[in-house]
Amino acid sequence: MIVEKYQNMLNAKSVIRNLSERATARGKEIGYENVFDFSLGNPSVPVPQKFTDTMIRLLQNEDPMTLHGYSPTLGIPSVKEKIAASLERRFGVPYRAEHIFPTSGAAGAIAHAVRCVAKEGDIVLGIAPFFPEYHPYIDLTGARLSLVPADTENFQINFEAFEEALTPQVAAVLINTPNNPSGAVYSEETLQKLAAIMTAKSEAFGHPIYLISDEPYREIVFAGVKAPYVAKYYANTLTCYSFSKSLSLPGERIGYVAVNPACPDAAMLVNMCGQISRGIGHNCPSSIIQLAVAECIDETADLSVYETNMNLIYDTLTDLGFSCVKPGGTFYIFPKALEEDATAFCTKALDYDLVLVPSDSFGCPGHFRMAYCIDTEKVIRSLEVLRKFAKEVYGA
Amino acid sequence: MIVEKYQNMLNAKSVIRNLSERATARGKEIGYENVFDFSLGNPSVPVPQKFTDTMIRLLQNEDPMTLHGYSPTLGIPSVKEKIAASLERRFGVPYRAEHIFPTSGAAGAIAHAVRCVAKEGDIVLGIAPFFPEYHPYIDLTGARLSLVPADTENFQINFEAFEEALTPQVAAVLINTPNNPSGAVYSEETLQKLAAIMTAKSEAFGHPIYLISDEPYREIVFAGVKAPYVAKYYANTLTCYSFSKSLSLPGERIGYVAVNPACPDAAMLVNMCGQISRGIGHNCPSSIIQLAVAECIDETADLSVYETNMNLIYDTLTDLGFSCVKPGGTFYIFPKALEEDATAFCTKALDYDLVLVPSDSFGCPGHFRMAYCIDTEKVIRSLEVLRKFAKEVYGA
Repeated sequence: MIVEKYQNMLNAKSVIRNLSERATARGKEIGYENVFDFSLGNPSVPVPQKFTDTMIRLLQNEDPMTLHGYSPTLGIPSVKEKIAASLERRFGVPYRAEHIFPTSGAAGAIAHAVRCVAKEGDIVLGIAPFFPEYHPYIDLTGARLSLVPADTENFQINFEAFEEALTPQVAAVLINTPNNPSGAVYSEETLQKLAAIMTAKSEAFGHPIYLISDEPYREIVFAGVKAPYVAKYYANTLTCYSFSKSLSLPGERIGYVAVNPACPDAAMLVNMCGQISRGIGHNCPSSIIQLAVAECIDETADLSVYETNMNLIYDTLTDLGFSCVKPGGTFYIFPKALEEDATAFCTKALDYDLVLVPSDSFGCPGHFRMAYCIDTEKVIRSLEVLRKFAKEVYGA
Repeated sequence: MIVEKYQNMLNAKSVIRNLSERATARGKEIGYENVFDFSLGNPSVPVPQKFTDTMIRLLQNEDPMTLHGYSPTLGIPSVKEKIAASLERRFGVPYRAEHIFPTSGAAGAIAHAVRCVAKEGDIVLGIAPFFPEYHPYIDLTGARLSLVPADTENFQINFEAFEEALTPQVAAVLINTPNNPSGAVYSEETLQKLAAIMTAKSEAFGHPIYLISDEPYREIVFAGVKAPYVAKYYANTLTCYSFSKSLSLPGERIGYVAVNPACPDAAMLVNMCGQISRGIGHNCPSSIIQLAVAECIDETADLSVYETNMNLIYDTLTDLGFSCVKPGGTFYIFPKALEEDATAFCTKALDYDLVLVPSDSFGCPGHFRMAYCIDTEKVIRSLEVLRKFAKEVYGA
């Protein structure tokens, strides 16, 4: 009687995880410092000292029964207030505590948001290239992820294809800016156009189409780039955030769903998140982590290394003749491979101990992803190897 | 397009939570020290100092990138090893790391376990009286909770009713010992009989029937009572544990599923838990909490207050003529009400600022639950009020 759908998921192994395991195994042979592992999006800078200090202060001074006691179903009110106030201060959207639902990272946030608005048989429309983990978040609700082909020129949105794909069966559109894997940041123009189309179609279909905005890289935006706040452009927006990247604590599983106060069903959607959480047995992130993150709400880790790495890599890639959209943020870059078959390209790179992820699982063939959340010193060494690889194999 | 099933859950409010909110509101009027609130099962003793010390040590000494980095999908290996070793040492069942899946408390553990073995249309068989939150854990899988009527003599298992209810549609049996709400501890005889029947029926039906054993109160067992370890009696057992009660940290959301090594599908079931976690976006409990709890694996908070409180309450109740099974563990007691309608009884008690929970939602009418995880001083004061209430309203 073991449930088949989870067994089937086991058989569909993650390409990224396989590569990462291979890199780890190879590291045991030749030393991990000699494996140029660009596979995993794991932050490479430490958590801010203020977070550590806050944790210690809470542990030393707070009543342990309050500190480690049950959170209310909808999260700790003081934490929700601080998140809402920070969003209002920074983006001018008048969130209040009641619009915020703390979750286990952006993963938990997206899984809750999708469950709120998409039921069995519905379509959730994603934009290629996309984060492949959207599949389990959506598939297990009984809804279906459908993809709009990539705008490979700029990694904004291919609006012609988007309008065509936005049928009455679409319950929600799921976007991710700054984007994993492309590093692109959606422009104000893109968001305005997206909102206009979704508003028109919602009216035409006679039901709301929700916008689920996955924003774990919101704080990693490079010089000269503006990252507009998505919810400002569309009332029915559920913003999914994680502190994993901004504070460098992915293992602590802390993020939130913020429902736009302009969304007519905002209060009910947050309450529904609480019920979904009950059903999956999650019942809020760790209480001490909620409290400590709330004290560090406007802090970030020192994120500057990602921009340093990006510039080094981008310059080398373009110098070698790679076709590549310059990332506006994140710690990813998504160049075109030097042959049509990205998997073949990445397999050949492995011979040089360069661990690159082929783009097929991101819904955009012919590219590869590099996650440059590694030390700059290693990036510099890797670029020499990349030059050698491109030259020897492709005559670049 | 908002999903109806979660909206419907919102309308079915929790009796316990309503009472608790009422107690809090009344506390604001007359001072919370004057409200005898027996509604919520929230531990009333502090976390062991060793936990606090371990957390501080980890924060001060560990590399923050390791400490707060992503857990592997199936949990941190060193944590899983320590949990397995502790279970083997204490109960003689040869668990290894690969049999352990860390979760967000027992709630997360049960929700994962049920999703592994029960699919849409299946029955999960519970034993009354039962913890009402089993409903959301089971209902949202599409399976259905069916209840075996209580053995009101001893709150063990009514085996005649159990055998009748154990049809081929039953994918799993869900038990809870020490039991919330009755405080009963299943005897070795009960567990042997349960295992014998389930083994025979599994064979007769030609498919395994899984036993999901919910054990958050395993460490709260009173003098003279033996709590046999459930998985020793039945190979296909998924043990669901939480450190919430033993370590007094319910807000930190940490527990595990331990799949019996004797279960033929053990390895696959743990792997499936990882896939379920991916789909609900949970992806492991907080990494620092996993690491700290693993260092305190054989510790408990000072749990003796619960037995002190139980004896005081039990003696008074029996003295007043209540019919009551003496709890063997937990911090609950489940006496018969002094009239048939438990809700009417508890409503009258509210006039005395006694907050008791009527038993209807526990699947066993005519009783009430007292959660005596409160200060002994307050228990003593409450018993005077209970005497007054029983005398004035029921002539006891």
